[in-house]
Amino acid sequence: MGVVVSFGSEDAGGDRAFAALRDLVADEMAHTNDFILSRMQSQVRMIPELAGHLIKSGGKRLRPLLTLAAIRMCGYRGEDNVRLAASVEFLHTATLLHDDVVDESGLRRGLSTANAIWGNQASVLVGDFLLSRAFQLMVEIGSLRILEILSNAAGIIVEGEVLQLERASDIATTEDTYLRIITAKTATLFAAACQTAAVIAARPAVEEEALESYGKNLGIAFQLVDDALDYSARQASFGKTVGDDFREGKITLPVVLSFRRGSDTERAFWRQVMEEGQQNADDLAMAVQLMNRHGALSDTIERARHYGDMARDALAIFPESAEKTCLLGIVDFCISRAH
Amino acid sequence: MGVVVSFGSEDAGGDRAFAALRDLVADEMAHTNDFILSRMQSQVRMIPELAGHLIKSGGKRLRPLLTLAAIRMCGYRGEDNVRLAASVEFLHTATLLHDDVVDESGLRRGLSTANAIWGNQASVLVGDFLLSRAFQLMVEIGSLRILEILSNAAGIIVEGEVLQLERASDIATTEDTYLRIITAKTATLFAAACQTAAVIAARPAVEEEALESYGKNLGIAFQLVDDALDYSARQASFGKTVGDDFREGKITLPVVLSFRRGSDTERAFWRQVMEEGQQNADDLAMAVQLMNRHGALSDTIERARHYGDMARDALAIFPESAEKTCLLGIVDFCISRAH
Repeated sequence: MGVVVSFGSEDAGGDRAFAALRDLVADEMAHTNDFILSRMQSQVRMIPELAGHLIKSGGKRLRPLLTLAAIRMCGYRGEDNVRLAASVEFLHTATLLHDDVVDESGLRRGLSTANAIWGNQASVLVGDFLLSRAFQLMVEIGSLRILEILSNAAGIIVEGEVLQLERASDIATTEDTYLRIITAKTATLFAAACQTAAVIAARPAVEEEALESYGKNLGIAFQLVDDALDYSARQASFGKTVGDDFREGKITLPVVLSFRRGSDTERAFWRQVMEEGQQNADDLAMAVQLMNRHGALSDTIERARHYGDMARDALAIFPESAEKTCLLGIVDFCISRAH
Repeated sequence: MGVVVSFGSEDAGGDRAFAALRDLVADEMAHTNDFILSRMQSQVRMIPELAGHLIKSGGKRLRPLLTLAAIRMCGYRGEDNVRLAASVEFLHTATLLHDDVVDESGLRRGLSTANAIWGNQASVLVGDFLLSRAFQLMVEIGSLRILEILSNAAGIIVEGEVLQLERASDIATTEDTYLRIITAKTATLFAAACQTAAVIAARPAVEEEALESYGKNLGIAFQLVDDALDYSARQASFGKTVGDDFREGKITLPVVLSFRRGSDTERAFWRQVMEEGQQNADDLAMAVQLMNRHGALSDTIERARHYGDMARDALAIFPESAEKTCLLGIVDFCISRAH
């Protein structure tokens, strides 16, 4: 810990890009926030309490922001933008709740996780509740195509999570399998959040596909950076417990690369700490040292840049606009948020 | 334990009625079973393994049987009957998986529960997978109205489960609250399974409502009997762990009635075993003895008969048919399955 990897000079630019996106769709996002609060209500008290804990805890709302900006870029002027953005955020929040149960996490966004406060039982059920609400909102929008894209996405996300569970702590996981997991777990929802924007605006298939590709590659880049951050961020600014992945024995790309590039002695270390779960107080620092020795963290960020480039190129078919500029800027934001 | 409550003479008639329903829609159900197996496949090995454990374990498939029979009664001749029935069964199976995690059950239908074998993490995720599949099948049917009914049902089911969790072990739970819980948890899916049959057949609203009412009241009766069975069935024939509800401190109607009708000493007993969870080896037998003293089990069945009557009356608007006869017979089956 304490080792900070230099990820380049996109830092300030990335923060500005995020602020620009937030400002661009500030009105729609305010409506979406109100809408989210109103639609997570229930006469069963525990539901808004628990859901509110997570939803109000100040996540970046990156996915609904992307949806709202992409909808505007596509020229849609109706009022279902708020429903679609809320639906995407509900889906995301539901997977977070279930994820924290599965990962037994204790801290998210700098706060105790819902499962740590209310228990796994409530987290499972409120996740189900938000999932149902997401589908109810899609039904209200009335587009079978949107329902198709998002129900398919929900299935793929879960397949990715089960695959990760199957491979949990398998130190021999390949980079390909790792990519398959994060594509399913993370990138699929980014892709759907952007693709459905084209659908709601009734844009041609080529624009649907372009936005899907933008979202997918952005999502992969986002997750790669996230996985690097788990070994390098300062806890306060990051809002997650640094070393979570390490303590859970979760095999992410920094580990995959370090294991493959390491000596026999180093591989024995990785087997012991990740597969056998035998970790001492110094082992996280040792892991970070090995990662830096083999350039595993900086190369993880390099890989992220590669996917970020693909995300940018996917948007090339759209004419210039303030929305497009913001969506391009978000690629920088995702890659630079390491600082 | 070992105390068998006489529930009347519907026994043999009930079994015959279930067999009649199964025979009536044997072809459609065979297709539905094949379809269920084909649509729970995934390249992620753990998913069909775990889902298959539950789905193949020989539940009665009561809900899809009801859907198929109601669809036939409504005169539908298309091929989406199988999709709808499978969707209903996937929804049901998903809630079972999550329910067993929440209840920490070890045995269901005479087999170890999925969470006992594969762990809670896998059960949560595979439940999510089946939920997604259910929605994907509804999208394939292409009816927004069916999506609306079933996504609303999914939300209400979860609200019922959370409400039950909130009230868990609250010995002062009223019969009204108990009814609200089982209506949401159990009857809502029975209602949706029947109502959507009228929707897929494009029948008028009055028939939709009649089938919804039939399903809802049948579901309440079914759950009431289930809750009585938890204190009176022989384990082998019942396929559940007798006394599960008791050990979990779950407040069901037999407990509600016994507590309210009991002496101060008896109430102290109920508080100790249900609220404080202090249970000795003899306490289950004592609980059953108190229930019998106050007629709590037989009155629970009486209440079930009341809802069964309403279910029968709801079908009155339909002309006579083999399907209607079967659906009426299922009311007897639900109430008589105690033996």
